[in-house]
Amino acid sequence: MRYANINGTVVAHDQASLHISDLGLRRGYAVFEFFRVLSGIPVFLEDHLERFERSAQLLELEPPFDREKLEGLIRELIRLNDLEQGGIQMLLTGGYSPDAFTPSTPNLIITPVAVTPPPAQLYERGGKVLLHRNLRELPEAKTTDYLAAVRLSRRAQAEGATEVVYHDGTWVSEGGRSSLLIIKDGVLYTAKEGVLPGITRKHLLQVARPLLPILERPIALSELLEADEVLLTGATRQVMPITQIEDKPVGNGQVGPYARALMAAFEAHLEAYLNRHAVLR
Amino acid sequence: MRYANINGTVVAHDQASLHISDLGLRRGYAVFEFFRVLSGIPVFLEDHLERFERSAQLLELEPPFDREKLEGLIRELIRLNDLEQGGIQMLLTGGYSPDAFTPSTPNLIITPVAVTPPPAQLYERGGKVLLHRNLRELPEAKTTDYLAAVRLSRRAQAEGATEVVYHDGTWVSEGGRSSLLIIKDGVLYTAKEGVLPGITRKHLLQVARPLLPILERPIALSELLEADEVLLTGATRQVMPITQIEDKPVGNGQVGPYARALMAAFEAHLEAYLNRHAVLR
Repeated sequence: MRYANINGTVVAHDQASLHISDLGLRRGYAVFEFFRVLSGIPVFLEDHLERFERSAQLLELEPPFDREKLEGLIRELIRLNDLEQGGIQMLLTGGYSPDAFTPSTPNLIITPVAVTPPPAQLYERGGKVLLHRNLRELPEAKTTDYLAAVRLSRRAQAEGATEVVYHDGTWVSEGGRSSLLIIKDGVLYTAKEGVLPGITRKHLLQVARPLLPILERPIALSELLEADEVLLTGATRQVMPITQIEDKPVGNGQVGPYARALMAAFEAHLEAYLNRHAVLR
Repeated sequence: MRYANINGTVVAHDQASLHISDLGLRRGYAVFEFFRVLSGIPVFLEDHLERFERSAQLLELEPPFDREKLEGLIRELIRLNDLEQGGIQMLLTGGYSPDAFTPSTPNLIITPVAVTPPPAQLYERGGKVLLHRNLRELPEAKTTDYLAAVRLSRRAQAEGATEVVYHDGTWVSEGGRSSLLIIKDGVLYTAKEGVLPGITRKHLLQVARPLLPILERPIALSELLEADEVLLTGATRQVMPITQIEDKPVGNGQVGPYARALMAAFEAHLEAYLNRHAVLR
């Protein structure tokens, strides 16, 4: 990656730095956003910029630019980095704080990231998830609050798990970096509140609507463990079937028919999105 | 503040920066530590360095230096900044991460901060706290996870509150930047688990032991609301009486006799510590 953008200015990526008084660093006070770039196209960009603004509102931070300007900076960065396949991360931090606590003028960082898509076998055989008791503070906002996700990633990897799913002892909420959906008796369930408004999840629900009934409501931990099929969605993992929770198989332990249909429907939807946006490059 | 220290090297404070790939910035993955400097003496430094190491262990980060070396860097920084009254913050981050998620070689930041002690009237009349439902992830580690504390500080200030106290609906845990203790019928109660091991709290318990019985156990929200006296402790606020919770007075709404005795005992204890360490400067 050759270039990043800090506060509207293109900088060499290896020189891109922030002063240590930045509140994102000092107090974990920062909005986060991430989207894929496929064939040079920022995927579902309009949704990501909308969520970015909503997260900023929840943290009472004012982005320095409007959506149109942000989109311009992002497209410029994709061009400058010749970014065909990868991702873009955005951060809006609490800014340089004189007392290292009170938010100041936000700092905006836009930076490309390399993305390694999950191995194909996870989609063929399904993935494994671990469970962890955790409630994210302010789950509706996408922030840099990934303490649990980063800390547990080593354990997850050691146990061959692709993700850690959070619960509060009674209800499951979401994965550390993904949204959670379950299928039981032909109905798709997914939580709507107390979770990050996932954008892949939103698009999956669009394509799922003609395929099966959808209920957006809290999911009990016991329901997760008794689900017929389980799915995770996210910008990088897209739509991933989960066939094992801790040491317990989901349903018969195979990728189920709804998962296959939903993966195919999402893939077609994404393909159509890319074709529609290819002319805009 | 003229100087900071990054990874063992003294740098001009206004030039002190980290690359944007640092995991403290990108994923909120960083250990945090803070202590006061009074009369040029780092207060309870040995406790803070011990907690710093414990927090680093919990985040599976290896500090680049041992305790003796860290102490040397801190004393050098105090000297270079002519820091008589103030504070020092330490950060140990997940380091520069190629994939912006996986921890790498940690970055260590040691930096002086200006400290404004709370106004004297808070100790004479007592302070007000707000309540907020929040569970910190990994409460036993001191990290840069201050999302809730920073976000609520504006509301707290608007409502004349000095702190926000976290609870889970049933149990109270701690303040956003302080430990919580209550007194009921002549007994001092304070939670031991699921909270940050506060260092001012530890020293207060030492001086409290001859004065009243102490029970270290979880405190119910209902117990907080029916306490005779409530105290917050922290490096900056030291021992602060709380006389109002939301709109409800604590006890008779005045600073109580135990609070006065404990504040005086702590002050004498701190004074003795400073005298004992003055010769070491």
